[in-house]
This record gives sequence, C-alpha cells and structure tokens, in this order.
Amino acid sequence: MIDSSSDATPWDIDADKLGEECGIFGVIGTRDAAPMTALGLHALQHRGQEAVGITSFDGQEFYSRRGIGHVAANFSSAEALAELPGIMAAGHVRYSTTGGSGLRNVQPLFADLASGGFAIAHNGNISNAMHLKRDLVQKGAIFQSTSDTEVIIHLVATSRYPTLLDRFVDALRLVEGAYALICMTPAGMIACRDPIGIRPLVMGRLGPKGKGGATVFASETVALDVVGAEFVREIEPGELVEVDLDGKVRSHRPFGNPSARPCIFEHVYFSRPDSRMGGQSVYQVRKAIGRELARESLADADMVIPVPDSGVPAALGYAQESGLPFELGIIRSHYVGRTFIQPSDGARHADVKRKHNANRAIVEGKRIVLIDDSIVRGTTSLKIVQMMREAGAAEVHMRIASPPTEHSCFYGVDTPERSKLLAARMDVKAMGEFIQADSLAFVSIDGLYRAVGLAGRDNACPQFCDACFSGEYPTRLTDLAEREGLTKPVEKVA
Amino acid sequence: MIDSSSDATPWDIDADKLGEECGIFGVIGTRDAAPMTALGLHALQHRGQEAVGITSFDGQEFYSRRGIGHVAANFSSAEALAELPGIMAAGHVRYSTTGGSGLRNVQPLFADLASGGFAIAHNGNISNAMHLKRDLVQKGAIFQSTSDTEVIIHLVATSRYPTLLDRFVDALRLVEGAYALICMTPAGMIACRDPIGIRPLVMGRLGPKGKGGATVFASETVALDVVGAEFVREIEPGELVEVDLDGKVRSHRPFGNPSARPCIFEHVYFSRPDSRMGGQSVYQVRKAIGRELARESLADADMVIPVPDSGVPAALGYAQESGLPFELGIIRSHYVGRTFIQPSDGARHADVKRKHNANRAIVEGKRIVLIDDSIVRGTTSLKIVQMMREAGAAEVHMRIASPPTEHSCFYGVDTPERSKLLAARMDVKAMGEFIQADSLAFVSIDGLYRAVGLAGRDNACPQFCDACFSGEYPTRLTDLAEREGLTKPVEKVA
Amino acid sequence: MIDSSSDATPWDIDADKLGEECGIFGVIGTRDAAPMTALGLHALQHRGQEAVGITSFDGQEFYSRRGIGHVAANFSSAEALAELPGIMAAGHVRYSTTGGSGLRNVQPLFADLASGGFAIAHNGNISNAMHLKRDLVQKGAIFQSTSDTEVIIHLVATSRYPTLLDRFVDALRLVEGAYALICMTPAGMIACRDPIGIRPLVMGRLGPKGKGGATVFASETVALDVVGAEFVREIEPGELVEVDLDGKVRSHRPFGNPSARPCIFEHVYFSRPDSRMGGQSVYQVRKAIGRELARESLADADMVIPVPDSGVPAALGYAQESGLPFELGIIRSHYVGRTFIQPSDGARHADVKRKHNANRAIVEGKRIVLIDDSIVRGTTSLKIVQMMREAGAAEVHMRIASPPTEHSCFYGVDTPERSKLLAARMDVKAMGEFIQADSLAFVSIDGLYRAVGLAGRDNACPQFCDACFSGEYPTRLTDLAEREGLTKPVEKVA
Amino acid sequence: MIDSSSDATPWDIDADKLGEECGIFGVIGTRDAAPMTALGLHALQHRGQEAVGITSFDGQEFYSRRGIGHVAANFSSAEALAELPGIMAAGHVRYSTTGGSGLRNVQPLFADLASGGFAIAHNGNISNAMHLKRDLVQKGAIFQSTSDTEVIIHLVATSRYPTLLDRFVDALRLVEGAYALICMTPAGMIACRDPIGIRPLVMGRLGPKGKGGATVFASETVALDVVGAEFVREIEPGELVEVDLDGKVRSHRPFGNPSARPCIFEHVYFSRPDSRMGGQSVYQVRKAIGRELARESLADADMVIPVPDSGVPAALGYAQESGLPFELGIIRSHYVGRTFIQPSDGARHADVKRKHNANRAIVEGKRIVLIDDSIVRGTTSLKIVQMMREAGAAEVHMRIASPPTEHSCFYGVDTPERSKLLAARMDVKAMGEFIQADSLAFVSIDGLYRAVGLAGRDNACPQFCDACFSGEYPTRLTDLAEREGLTKPVEKVA
Repeated sequence: MIDSSSDATPWDIDADKLGEECGIFGVIGTRDAAPMTALGLHALQHRGQEAVGITSFDGQEFYSRRGIGHVAANFSSAEALAELPGIMAAGHVRYSTTGGSGLRNVQPLFADLASGGFAIAHNGNISNAMHLKRDLVQKGAIFQSTSDTEVIIHLVATSRYPTLLDRFVDALRLVEGAYALICMTPAGMIACRDPIGIRPLVMGRLGPKGKGGATVFASETVALDVVGAEFVREIEPGELVEVDLDGKVRSHRPFGNPSARPCIFEHVYFSRPDSRMGGQSVYQVRKAIGRELARESLADADMVIPVPDSGVPAALGYAQESGLPFELGIIRSHYVGRTFIQPSDGARHADVKRKHNANRAIVEGKRIVLIDDSIVRGTTSLKIVQMMREAGAAEVHMRIASPPTEHSCFYGVDTPERSKLLAARMDVKAMGEFIQADSLAFVSIDGLYRAVGLAGRDNACPQFCDACFSGEYPTRLTDLAEREGLTKPVEKVA
Repeated sequence: MIDSSSDATPWDIDADKLGEECGIFGVIGTRDAAPMTALGLHALQHRGQEAVGITSFDGQEFYSRRGIGHVAANFSSAEALAELPGIMAAGHVRYSTTGGSGLRNVQPLFADLASGGFAIAHNGNISNAMHLKRDLVQKGAIFQSTSDTEVIIHLVATSRYPTLLDRFVDALRLVEGAYALICMTPAGMIACRDPIGIRPLVMGRLGPKGKGGATVFASETVALDVVGAEFVREIEPGELVEVDLDGKVRSHRPFGNPSARPCIFEHVYFSRPDSRMGGQSVYQVRKAIGRELARESLADADMVIPVPDSGVPAALGYAQESGLPFELGIIRSHYVGRTFIQPSDGARHADVKRKHNANRAIVEGKRIVLIDDSIVRGTTSLKIVQMMREAGAAEVHMRIASPPTEHSCFYGVDTPERSKLLAARMDVKAMGEFIQADSLAFVSIDGLYRAVGLAGRDNACPQFCDACFSGEYPTRLTDLAEREGLTKPVEKVA
Repeated sequence: MIDSSSDATPWDIDADKLGEECGIFGVIGTRDAAPMTALGLHALQHRGQEAVGITSFDGQEFYSRRGIGHVAANFSSAEALAELPGIMAAGHVRYSTTGGSGLRNVQPLFADLASGGFAIAHNGNISNAMHLKRDLVQKGAIFQSTSDTEVIIHLVATSRYPTLLDRFVDALRLVEGAYALICMTPAGMIACRDPIGIRPLVMGRLGPKGKGGATVFASETVALDVVGAEFVREIEPGELVEVDLDGKVRSHRPFGNPSARPCIFEHVYFSRPDSRMGGQSVYQVRKAIGRELARESLADADMVIPVPDSGVPAALGYAQESGLPFELGIIRSHYVGRTFIQPSDGARHADVKRKHNANRAIVEGKRIVLIDDSIVRGTTSLKIVQMMREAGAAEVHMRIASPPTEHSCFYGVDTPERSKLLAARMDVKAMGEFIQADSLAFVSIDGLYRAVGLAGRDNACPQFCDACFSGEYPTRLTDLAEREGLTKPVEKVA
Repeated sequence: MIDSSSDATPWDIDADKLGEECGIFGVIGTRDAAPMTALGLHALQHRGQEAVGITSFDGQEFYSRRGIGHVAANFSSAEALAELPGIMAAGHVRYSTTGGSGLRNVQPLFADLASGGFAIAHNGNISNAMHLKRDLVQKGAIFQSTSDTEVIIHLVATSRYPTLLDRFVDALRLVEGAYALICMTPAGMIACRDPIGIRPLVMGRLGPKGKGGATVFASETVALDVVGAEFVREIEPGELVEVDLDGKVRSHRPFGNPSARPCIFEHVYFSRPDSRMGGQSVYQVRKAIGRELARESLADADMVIPVPDSGVPAALGYAQESGLPFELGIIRSHYVGRTFIQPSDGARHADVKRKHNANRAIVEGKRIVLIDDSIVRGTTSLKIVQMMREAGAAEVHMRIASPPTEHSCFYGVDTPERSKLLAARMDVKAMGEFIQADSLAFVSIDGLYRAVGLAGRDNACPQFCDACFSGEYPTRLTDLAEREGLTKPVEKVA
C-alpha cells in the first residue's frame, strides 16, 4: 500500500557516495536512557540522515517516538524526551528507504507479542527477507512495514520455542545476510551481530565498574565517547549479549564460531575517523591507505588536496609519505541543505560549488593530486576535476583511497544498481578519461588490506567482506537469486 | 506501546452529548472515487470529528491517506486527492479514541494478506475484541493498532477457508457486537451489517441504471444526497453485499434471518435530520417525539425554545402540538473551535456562552419550555438553565426528547461510564433539582416507539436496541463480563 | 510590494453574502485583559474570519500577536495569551483583504510615536484614504501596510497639536467615511465612532459599579454577554470616549451633533440575532421584517422554510404572520471548512449541498416559501431553488428580508463591484426568472424602516445609511471620485 | 512593541566566537535574479544563519519573501522563487537580532517612498542610529522595525533633495558607523560602502563583457564564484556604484577620499578561506598568521592540531613553519543542529563533544599544539583543553591566530559586552591558567599586520580597523556615548 499520511522530506545527500543505511544505539541502566540515546544517535548521524526513532521502556510500558529528518530536529527538546521515560532505550538512524517511505518504516520497530512488548533496531540487510515474508503472509502474518527487519519480529512471534531468547535465536537461524541488532523486551536488552559480523556493534560501560552502571551498545565507538561511556569491547560476530534490568550481562554463541568477515568499507568511508573499529583507529587506517597509495601511485605534482571531508586523512597520509605539501584546495560549505534551483544563466556547476568551492588562490597554475575515498557513479568526480581546471589547476591527478567499486552491496549499504557503477562499466584508464583527470589510480586490494594491518588479502579465506570490490559475497543472496535478471553481467568499456 | 510520533489535536466537542463513534462511506465504479468519498465523509462529519482516512484502489495498488481532524482540513486539496487514484475508495470518520490515539488507529485499516490487499472501515464495536485478540497474539499475530477492528483482519488472515469471502464470513462468525463494515479487496467492495443491524448502512446508486453506474455505501442517506446518488435500499441486518469491479452486485445472508434490533438513538440524536432511516424521515420522527412529549408533559409556558441545534425538530413538534410559539431563545455560534482560557474575572459560564448565548430580548420575563434531545451528565443542562435564568426567564421547564439515559452503550457509541450518567444516579425528580429547572420531563419509552411509527415497545421482543434506556443489551458482552466490577450496579439518589 | 513571507490561507466563505469587514473589542481595567479580548472577539467572529490580532499593554510595554484564521485557532492556548500581559487589551477580527494580504495588514496596527506607543483597531472604511496617503508619502511618511487605517496613525504622528488627544481629533477631522475605533496609548483607551455613526460600537462594564471595575468596548452587545459585562450604552455618533488606567471615563464631542445615519444592514444581516442595536433586539427586528414581508407579499404555499441560518428569524416572523407552518426544509451542515474538489461524475451542486442539504421528506410535493436575508450575485439563490425543486418541491416562492441590493458599500462592507450585483443588473421580475423561482418579492424600504420601529423612511433626511439599497451615500467618496469609471451606471435588464 | 506573531527559532551557534552580523548579495541584469541571489546568499551563509530575505523587482512591482533560518530552508523550492520574478534582486542573511526579533526585522527592508519603491540590504552597524531615530520620530516618522537600517530609509524619505540619489547621499552624510549597502529603486541598483570601508563589498560580472551581462554585488568573492560571476573589483571605501536597468554602471565618490580602515577580523575569522579580500587570499593570510605564530611562539610538541574548522589554515601554516606534523586531533561533526538535553549521568562535556570529538588514537600520550582563531569568553577553549587531556594528551599548548580580543565591536559584529571578554578581564598568563593550557600565546598585532602583507601596524594611522584588539575606534560612537556606563573600563585580573 502506498501511504501518504506523512510527508517524506527530500534530502540533499552526497549523491555520489555509497550510503550507510543505519546506525543503532541502546542503553540500559540509567535514568537518562532516552536523552543519552538521542546524544548517541546524534554521534551516529553520519550513518543515516533520513529518519530517526527512539523507543524506551520504564519497567511497565514501552514508549516510542519517530520522525523524519535529523536527530537534533526530532529529539532535542525536553518535551520530546519527556515522552520517552525509563531506564532502557534504543534508537536508530537511517539513510534511505527501500519500498514506501513514511514513519511506519522508521525503526525501532515494535510489536506486542504474547510474551510482551518487543522492540528492534537493525543495521544491515536480510538477504532472504522477501522469501521469508512470502511464507509468513501465507500463514496469516500481517506486515505493517516494508522493512526487511519486520520479518525477524514475525519469526519470533510465530516460533514455537518456550522462551523469548530461544524464539529469537530460532528466528535468527532462518535469516541470512547482515545484521547488527539491538532489541528490547520487558526483561532487558539483547544485542547481537550476524554470524560473520558484517556490520559493526560495540559495547560500552557508563558509571561504576561493579553494580549500578549502565551498559551501552552502539554502531561505533564515537557514540560511546560522546555519551561519556568507556569502550568495553566489540560484540563478536555471531554473539548475542543479554543485559537484564538489574545490569547482569550474559553472552551467548548460538551460531558456533564461523570466520568473521566484517565490512572493510567501514574503514574506507562509513565510520567516523574518531571511531575505533576492529582494534584500529579509523583515522590511522585512512592515513595508512593514503601512504600505500603514495607508494603505489606517486604523482609528479606540487601539492596534495583532499576532496573534503572524507578524503582528508588519506590525503594527509599521502602528503606525509610523498613529501608534497597538504593544502585545502577545495573548501567545503557547512551549510548544505536542499538542492537549489539552478539559474539558467552562467552558474555552471553551481550544484557542486555550493558544497565544494575551489580555493583558486592556492591551485592556480599548480599541478595537484586530488585524494578521494571512492568513485561510485563518477559524476561528482568529473565535476570536481572540471572545477579545479576552471580554477586554474595545471594538472589534476586523482588518487582513490579504495579499489574500484565494481559490485553492489546487499548488506545494508545503499548502492546504485551495478550498471550505474562506473567501475563496473569501465576499466581504470577509461574511468580516468571519463572524469577528465590527467591520471587516475586506485589503491590495490592488497594495499587496502595492508593499511588495516594485515600482510595482504587472504584470497582463500578473505579476512573482510570486500564484495563491493571483489564480487565475493560471503552469504547466500536468496532474494536476489529469485529475482531474475539482476545478476546479469555488466559489460565493460575498455 | 505509547507512540507520540504524531500529535493528537485536542478537540472541543459537545462534551455532554453521547458521541457517535464513526461514519463510513464507500464507492465503486467511478473515476472520482476518492473525491466522492471525501464529499460523502464530509456529509457524515457529525458522526466523527477526530480523524479521517480514505483508502483507494486503482486496479493495481491500494493508496491510503489519513489525518487528524476534519475531512475538509485533510481532503479538500487536489494534491491530497491526487494521492488516491482509482475507481474504488472507502473512508471513515471517527469520533474518539479507545486506547492510544495517533494515526495508526485511523481507519480504513489495511493489510497485505496472502490473497492481496484488504482494507476495512468499521462503524460499531466488537464486544469480544479483547478476548479474540488475546487468542490471536498467542498464535503469533502482531497487532499494529489498538482498534477492535483489527481483530477482524487477523481473523480473516488466519482463517483456513479457501476464498476470501469464506474467510471473511468465518471471521465475522467469531465476533460479537455491532458492526457496519465497508471492505475493499483487489476483487471489489464488500459491505455488511451485523446480524441484528445495530449500526446503520445504506446503499445508493450513481449514474445509469443498467451497466456503467457506481455503487455507493454510506452510514446515512445524507451522504448519498450530497454526492448526488440515488437511495437504493438499506443493507439488511446480517446481509453481506459484494460488488465486483465490473459493477456486479451479489447479496449473501450468511447469518440466516435473526430479528433486527437497530439503534433507536440514531433517530433521537446521531443521524442528521435530513437523513432517512428505517423508512422514516429523521426530522419527522424528531418532530413526532416533540409532539408525544407535548401530549405527555405539557408545560404552562409562554414559548418553546430549542437547545440548538439537536433540539430544534422536537421543539417544532412540541410547539405545533401545544400551540405555544417557537422562538430562538438560545443562539448558537457557528465558530466553536477549541476551549478558551477562561478569564478569572466576571466571565461566568463563558465556556457555555461562547457556543450558546441567551437571546435576552426574547426570554426576559417569560416562562419558557426548553427542549433538548437527551441528558447525559447533566452539567451542560444545568449551565443552560442557569444562563436562561440570568437572561431573565421567569420559569424554565425542561423537556427531553428521549427517555432517561441510564446505561452505557457498548456498540460503538462513546458514552461515559455508567456512574457518570445522571439518570443512573438519580430519579427524574432529583435530576430536575440538579439542573435547577422548574420542571423536568422525559418522553416515555412507548412515546418514543410511537414516534417511530409503532404502537409501542414490544417488551417481549423489542423492535430496536434501546439498551441505553432499558439496559437490555441484545448481544453478549464478553469483554465486559471478563473485566469484573464494570457491571456493578450504580446506586440511585431518590 | 507583494510580500509572500506569510501564507494567506484561503477560506470558504458564504460567497454570495455581503461580508462585514471587521469586529473590534477592547477592555481596560482587568488583569484578564487579553483572555477577555479573545473571548469577546470569538463572539464577534461572524464579523470577520480571515485574520485576528490582539494588542495588550502592561503599563510599560505593548505586546502584540496576530494570526491568520479564527480567534479560537490563534488565541485559545495559555501560551498565546501569556504573551499578552497587562490590564488593557484591544483586538480585531477581519473578513477580507483589500490590497496585499499577510500579517502586516492584520490589526490592531501599532506605531511607536514620539508620545509613546499607539495601537488602533478599526471597523469601517476611510473613503479618502488613498488621497490622504498620497499627501503623507510626499512628505516622507513610510507606510507599512496597505490598510486604510494606517492613514490615521500617520496623521496623528505628523499632527502639530501638543496632546495626543488633540492630535487624534486633528487626524479624524481629515478623514471621511465610516469608522468605529478602539485605540490604546500608554495613558489608556480611546473609543470613538465617526460623526454619523455608520458602524456600531457599544460600551459595557464589568465588575463593581464604582471604583475598580473594567470598561469594555465592542462592536456588538453579544460580546458583552459572552464576557459577562453589563451593557452601559452605545457610543454616540461622533463621540470619543477616553478611559484612563485608573478607570476614569471622559466623553468628548469634537464633531458637534450631526444627524446619525447608522448602517441599516446591521439589522438585516451583519449582527448576531442575540445582539441589541439602536435599542432594538436584532432578532425581533428580523422577525418584524418577516412579518412586514408576509403582509406585503404573501405567497399561497404549504410551509415557510428559512435559508439557514440568517433567514431563520424572518422566516419565523413570516410564518407567525401568515399562519403557515415553519419547517426546516434545508439542513445546514456545521462542518463547512474549505471548498472540496468536485467529482466530475454526478455530484451536481455538491458545493451547495455540502453546506445546505434539502430535507426531501419535508418538501416533496409541497409549495414552499423560502425566506432569505438578501440576494447579492444571485448564484446561490439559483442553486438553492434548483436544489428544492430536485428534492420535489411543487412550487418555490422566494421572499427576501431586505430591499434589492443595488449599490456597493464603501463603508467597510465587502461588496462585489456594482456590475456583479444582480439587483443592479435586473428588475425584480428578471431576478425571479434568473433564480428560477415561481415568484420573488423583496420587503419594501418602508417596510424595512417600519420593522426597526419607525413610521417609514424619511426621504428628506433618512434615519439610516441605506446606500446599498438607495444609492444615497451619506458621506463624500473622494477616492472613488478620483478613480474614473467606477461610478459608471450599470445598465439594467428589464 | 513585543511582537510574538512569528516564532523565532533558537539556533545553536558556535557560542564562543565573534559573529558576523550579515552578508549581502545583489544582481541586476539577469532573468534569474532571484535564484542567483539565493545561491549567492547560500555561499554567504557563514555570515548569518538566523534569517534570510530576498526582494526582487520585475520592472513594475517589488516582491519580497523573508524567513527565519537558512537560505536553503527558505529559498530552495521553485515555488518560493516563483514569487520573486524580475531581472533585479537583492538579499540578506543575518546572524542575530538586536532588539525584538521576528520577520519584520529581516532585510531587505522595503518602503514605498514618494519616488517609488526602495529596498535596502545592510551589512554593518549605524553607530548613531538611536540618536537619529529619536529625531525622526519627533517629526512624525513611524518605524516598523527595530533595525538601525531603517533610519537610512526614513532619512531618504524625508530628505528635501530632488533626486533619489541626492536624497540617498544626503541620508548617508548623517549616519556614522559601518555600512556596506545594496539598494534597489525602480531605476536600478545602488551599492556603496561607508567612507572608511569597514565592511567589505565586491563587484562581479556575469555573461558577456560588453552589453547584456549582469552586474553582481556581494560581501565576499566566494559568492561570485558560486554563481559563476567574474570578480571585477572591490567597491572602494566611500564609493557609491549605480547600475541602471540597462546595465549602465556609474561610480560616485560623495565623501571624497578618506583613508580606508577595513575590518582586519574578516581575514582572521569572518570570511571564507576561499574568498579574496583586499587583494589577498584569505586562506593564504591565515596560513601566514600561523607561520608568524610559529615564529613568535614555537611550542615544544609532537604535533599541531587545529580547532576545526576555522583554525585549520593557521594550523597548516604553523605546521609548515615549525616542521611539526599536522594532524586531525579533533573531529568536527557535520550534524550540529540544536542543543540537546544533557543527560545528568556521565556525559561530561557532551555539548562540546557532539560538535567536536577528540581523536583519541592520535593524541593519546602526545604533546600537542592547538591552533584556534580567537578567544572570546574562553569557555569553549577551556572545554576543548579539558577534552584533549581526557583523551590522553600529555601537554596542551594553545596558540591563537589573532591578538587578544579586548574590546567590543560596534560595527556590525555580534560581540559580547566587554566585561564578558576574557582578554578584557585577564592578561595572557591568567587566560592560560583559566583555560588550563600548559601554555598560551597570541600572535602579535604586528605579526597579524605582517601576515596581510604589510611591514607592521602604522600606529599613527592604522591601515585596518582593529578596534577589537586595540580599542581604537575609527568613527564616532554617538549612541554609545549617550548611554552612560557602557564605556566604563573593565578591571583586569593579572
């Protein structure tokens, strides 16, 4: 059904980037559960700007509030937070909508099960959700959203196991794909990651070490920093952590110990540079990628210029390794907002310039190396190269801090269909011509693995999910396989 | 769960009246299905002012739009209606909220069943809804609203019968209480009334008699008038009428032929005076009640004054029968809106006066008969009597165009709990003293039955549901029986 | 300048009536000045529905709040009223916009003069406003609104007299036309009426008779009733009443004693029936008009039916005089709101019917007399006659409780230009054919004067302003005279 | 008067920075005048985020639209821009409100003068506005805003000179203080700067060199870049440039040739780094300040860390000069929005951290030099130093890229009153202790002048307005002098 009860606001997003679909946050054991969740979600805002929701529990009732737009726009008022009492809360920010938008797809999703209320916040994507949904509807289940996450709830609701935890594990055994989950029941909070840990989830602690402290779960460590929580550890792939209302923490491993395959793109682009992931500083890894890139593809140039802001750490690494000066040759506006009507006269590339303007005084007459994190469709890269030339750059060498993005992601990242990916359509030389750069180079896949501290990629058993670069998907993709034609190979331009 | 995602606007309602809970309207067979539904619901606005929703179907997809407030505020723009394409639409206005409010309780409710989309608009109340819901949740059903109507959808979804119509009848066999329903499936529209026809539902026809016309269903005939449809007939108690997309109409009688017990209060207050119900003009019946009242309880007075607007027809009947002049001694404002902050100085009864002001020039020094349709809590009657005295009335005789309202309604009418009903707490003499009238009289129950054209009430087998007067409920009240204490007798003040 | 900073909401108005342009209310001497003003304006809402404003003064500062729409929508919250502290407040409701709309034309207008703050609320129209404005702008005055009222403020600001009262009288001597004004200065409140008293203004008193009570001014007595104030007297034509912050009242007569010419249409349509005006009950005058009409133009019919609501008192008078029964043959909806999109199929006259529906059961096969207050363009009358015929009326006789409206009003009433007035284009016979009535008659001008208690119209020196009927304007119309072509005679169809 | 008709939204601003009060933009000679102005203002959004307005002229009428909030929120829709037709438009963004807020203070201000419409957008502050206003009100002028800019309009309106240009110059001769102005009349556009050019204003050209191009005026060159205009030159101090509707440009010098004193703080903080000002790249000047700072106050440390984003260029200069590595030790969130409710548990410094988070992996155990552009109240500096220590920094040395801000600005920059300025209350040593830094140093005033390319400050005749550092105000401050007590010296803590 197409429901127009609530207006979806159009957002101006960095249209030529891969988009993370979600960030999740939960806390149990503090009277400030909802305000803390709002703050934590705000620190995860880069993971999803379209909508936000928070659900809390006060020992009796669940309370929920959702909205379109940013955390600050929906959850900064005392009135909004007063509607979310309790010592346990979980929240969700999300990037974009699959299926109909509208508030009913905004998470946490909630259901009154026979065992009581059940709330769930999900980062990732269930790759057999359509398949499972068809079965459930056949048996009489009524879905209220178009979210893949709701499948999990119905599987829990209809499971025949006696305890909620067993029902939950029973449900998870049926789903395939990527998921980091934070759930709430009247008994407490459950956090878990899919068996190979594609999407991240960390645990923190707030307050006294022993009794009386609060437990925090979040997609990234930066959310722990902002709420003042101490990092405890990452949730392990396939681990399920239960925290009851008294603060007691139990760990379960219902899926045994499969090899982990966390998403390597979190290091390249998604995560905030001040987060730690897999024991590494994201900022340091990005600088290391820049250094690898300088070693692999040094350009004969006068300066290194980052495409702000995501290219900055790699550019610093490239500059330090190459000895070239690091300069802000592109200035990013802090005031982006919606797309403007373009004047028909004159204002060439105004849509790019209102976000990124060339610092003409710096680049005029200079040979520059531009550092960006990735190329998706290539359209923005083309405009940036053109903008630098119009500002007087003598040569423009583009260096990319990831391998070519040739494949779509089916694990909760908003990627264009494969035929729109520049790297799926062209080889590197053709891509360089398309974006009109004097030269173009990508870091190698091994260079990327070296930057995260490994000797290189173990091709027999890769240490990360790098499907967007390699096409090697670490799980089955049932729904995709059932839709024919989506897996057709894309023909490359050489 | 308490969901504050959307704000419920508080409404200023005629607080001391019984409130109808819903009006429904559906049309199939016209390209203007949604605009016509908006217009039809507007004509039924007196049956529910809190929220409104319309769902349409264009042969492929269902479309839905709901809002808080009036039909005109939500469905008068071309943009709003453009979101509801198709040749079939159904809508719902509702009065007040049982359970949590918010958009998710606004009807038509919709679900994607295995057989396709299913939309339902309901006027009435399922008196065993809680009981059925408990069972369904136990089996894994997830409810998305707190509406009793959703029970019907889950019963349809989980029925094992092969066709949708059989599943629907299977579901209705399990529910008890009052319901007039308009449903939509990809195959067409289904309208039905509960076995004893407590709530009203009429059928009309628009356009050519043979092929090509549209079929309309509505709670009252006034909605047919406004959209230009011709009245065909009432849906019979226990009848289920199916209209397919080609306009073919089939009638089913799955419940046999139980005796009808339509709500007699529709004649007294709920329906618009320009509607016809049970073959009678509502206006004429109200005038006839006034005439009965004049015969039974003539007052020695100078003029007859209606409490506007619902008391007007009965007052005309009383005046015509008694020969006393009919005068507008109370002027009703057309601009009611929300309750105002009351100034602490002076403005006595300002809350009543901003809606109803005494016409002092008329009533000063006069003995007046006030005619009102009913007394619920009695608080407004008291204020009106006081207002007339302050305006100089010499005597105030109150006559009520219904018997004393002693019992709550469990069939979709918003009544206060029994202990708040003045007639449940006092006899007529004490009520007259409470409202400070010089005399008070109600029409007798037989007088009321005479006014609708019968010889009187058949106490062995009453022709109407008059439970609010008699306490004789024509169906089982399972949920009420399961909640203890609500059936405790209220002690009367004599 | 065309300012789109604030959106004007379109309103659904009774499009074929003359529209009063304003209602004003002021109170001094109560801590509840703003809440009382809100309540008083609400009682005057029928005089203007487009916008509303209130200004208050707390002894130090003036506070102002304005909004588009109804009083209840803008001033019913405690928050809104808390922004308007003080013991003196004045407010304004207005009907429609001359010139650009938007909040800056919403009254009370306010200016910081050299003597301190000055707020003004105006009911009426300055007929030489354009002329005066041209002069003022030439001298350097900067207008912030397109309202004629602002001329008065600039005249006060630039007057050379020493005291504010002298400056104010100096300003009023320069303006021509109709005005009832309520002004506030740091010293207190000033209320006044133009020399011939075209627009009404009454004074009331709240609280103790001696010291300590509050003084109230309002366009109609109904506003006094609603706030609980006692009627003291009308402000005399040409009188200026000053009330200081201690409650002391002074009356001034700067214009001598010209003959009064109050607007007679206030009795016919504008005022609420429960108001008193010129010592007469508006309701009783309207009934008397109905009686005159029955005497002058009795129709051979079965019943008398009012066009609701404004035709009701005249219809009661007509019925009482003629002995014909009074019946509600047209039912008015209480839920009007905005205009709906009209379905293209079937729904003939849906725009009329959603407001006024024929009570078919009553009128079918009957000869009816319809009573309405006036005919402006005639389009609505035509639709109502057609609607009655479609409902089965055998004959439709239209009787109008005012003489033909042949001329535009330039005194603050929103009339269409003369060429749109049906009575300016046709004689009565042609009008009757246009509206398709079996007969049409208007009350005579002398009948109207008799209904207000006079022997008849004194043609040498008419007792009322009846320019809309007679074309005899009691003041100069300088702006009109300066615009050529607007005074061209309209040719009548015989 | 305190007007609450429109709600002012509270903004979360970088509370401990000096705030520029305005940015202005105008264009004449293109059919896209309003869309181009929206885009230009967006590029100037850093100069004012509170409110925005655009006025256009289509040869006949002026059109205006204003709103609270960002340019993108108010002027990105086609509907909004369609309300602003014409080939000439001017707009204004503003930072904060002096006096009552609300839409009526949002510029461009507009008045209908005897000579026709007159619109004005102003960056700066009239330092004798109160004095002039008092005179004007005495003569009958009515002010509609509390903006100092309106004084100019009334002076023009009441000037006795025959031509508008003469009236405008006559008005400007009476005002003192800082102003860059863009005005529109029915004849064209006028841009001018005050005699000593305190606030900046540049001219650009769009389209063909000869006939047919458009002329653009803007506060900074970055706005020219974004709309695709070519930089022509700065408007000279005391120059008045007239452009008529045919594109003809005339320059006037009504004030002779006083020595220029442009604001030096534009280089330090206000302007965007990609703007050019006074022939210098703002980015290069900031880097040069960083280099001066490194020469003057080298710290023995491991790395240089900018306080983002304004400290970045100076930090790059400091790093290049000192040879220390430049690292992003503080990560700034792109999603700031409103202030959040602070959880009472744990979340120490959450208000700072939600904007700026320490990059713990980088700073832990390190001696760091923090580079910021200025210290105003010192509260944010303190929190940042504490945040770095909590993240494990071994030593924190603060270096400031401007001299101590000891004095308030009266030329259109939003500064706290002098007693709130940390540098007015303490010497540098005490300031360092207050912010808990291991060392604190400011660039010298001569170092600052060297960075802009001069040999140093000419104390006899300073080349810039540096009153905020030196207390030497280059104009009279009449209003300040008339308010006693504001000039009292602040006592310093040593």
